[in-house]
Amino acid sequence: MSDTFGKIYVVGLGPGDESMMTAQALEAIKASDVVIGYRVYTDLIKDLCDGKEVIESGMRQEIDRCKSCVELAKEGKTVALVCSGDAGVYGMASPMLEIAGKAGNDGIETEIVPGITAALSGAAVLGAPIGHDFCVISLSDLLTPWELIEKRLKLAAEADLCIVIYNPSSHKRADYLKKACEVMLTKLPADRPCGYVRNIGREGTDKKICTLKELADEQVDMFTTVFIGNSMTKISGDGLITPRGYAEK
Amino acid sequence: MSDTFGKIYVVGLGPGDESMMTAQALEAIKASDVVIGYRVYTDLIKDLCDGKEVIESGMRQEIDRCKSCVELAKEGKTVALVCSGDAGVYGMASPMLEIAGKAGNDGIETEIVPGITAALSGAAVLGAPIGHDFCVISLSDLLTPWELIEKRLKLAAEADLCIVIYNPSSHKRADYLKKACEVMLTKLPADRPCGYVRNIGREGTDKKICTLKELADEQVDMFTTVFIGNSMTKISGDGLITPRGYAEK
Repeated sequence: MSDTFGKIYVVGLGPGDESMMTAQALEAIKASDVVIGYRVYTDLIKDLCDGKEVIESGMRQEIDRCKSCVELAKEGKTVALVCSGDAGVYGMASPMLEIAGKAGNDGIETEIVPGITAALSGAAVLGAPIGHDFCVISLSDLLTPWELIEKRLKLAAEADLCIVIYNPSSHKRADYLKKACEVMLTKLPADRPCGYVRNIGREGTDKKICTLKELADEQVDMFTTVFIGNSMTKISGDGLITPRGYAEK
Repeated sequence: MSDTFGKIYVVGLGPGDESMMTAQALEAIKASDVVIGYRVYTDLIKDLCDGKEVIESGMRQEIDRCKSCVELAKEGKTVALVCSGDAGVYGMASPMLEIAGKAGNDGIETEIVPGITAALSGAAVLGAPIGHDFCVISLSDLLTPWELIEKRLKLAAEADLCIVIYNPSSHKRADYLKKACEVMLTKLPADRPCGYVRNIGREGTDKKICTLKELADEQVDMFTTVFIGNSMTKISGDGLITPRGYAEK
């Protein structure tokens, strides 16, 4: 009986600090019997999970996590599936909705609760790098062919979009940011203002402003978000400013 | 004496409803003596402004608004400059930092407080349209040449990015979304899944799913955010799902 089914919230927690969560996200977690997520994220909200069942899982167990949510909702439980940043941007909203939409799952209500994604929280640390049209591109080639990533970087550079890079590096992909910079350097000048932020909204937030050429040799980790300015972006003090338009004085 | 200068917060309010603001944004407003913003936005947070000086201004008075913030900070006041959505995405962070950075303004502290931008809040209403690489493009040609907007739409379509369109229409630009769709239709199939959301997070939230060809003939207003799927985006129930990768089943 679908009447007795529970509800699934897919909740974007923002960068980490509770002060950067929305009230809606807090309420969704409060309303839930079970909180499910990658262990790094459930750790961030430990205080909010008092008295709730917490199911922590490892990386790359996303599909299993979604299936667990469906099972629990079928038992009548309200479940919060949590992710860092936004729920939709490379987040769990997409696999969760796909699985909840399968035959036999009618009557399970799902609600997507957005959160502050790193493009926004990182931009705030750097000043105003995405004041105009921008794109977000992940360098993870786990589920995306590298050729497509390169193509997107090239076309985004040609389009003079500010470019925000997610997942710039990992243990296995230590040279990916360098490779990406080399691709962009075929279209953009070496002195294009860039910046990056590490550990946004967590202990040890760290930022750096540099040129695109310098960026190619920076060592960044998977907790870093990288910003490439557009043709109007300026370095101002220790930050980046991209004007809101091309006619603005 | 810069020691006596106040502070300027540039605060992203999110889509409108207080539940979608962050605690950090609420705190910044609470900590401020003066709240400044376009009247539509200050109206959204009337309840939070009790006992504060509120300076409402009309549209297109952005630069004056920033200058007022500087004057007030020089008087030692703490000021919250508020915008809808995020503070940085086509927001006030960029002009404010530019003006605060001018000679004579040393010692004025500015802090950017991010908010949920319409790409995220609108996506949550539609399901998961931006589950993979995406871009945000404004159709407003007030400060950007239309030729550049067209170029960006074309290259973004070629790059197979999900495309989020801000400012799709206004009184003077009633046919801009149609023009944008015609540009994208030179690169994308007529049946590409699309959707739009009106009045996100406010009274009368409304959404529609359609094809790119149909989108060209939709009447939308300036409170609408439009989503164009990538080659993997599917219509699922009354929503859109873009998978998080190209290898995912």
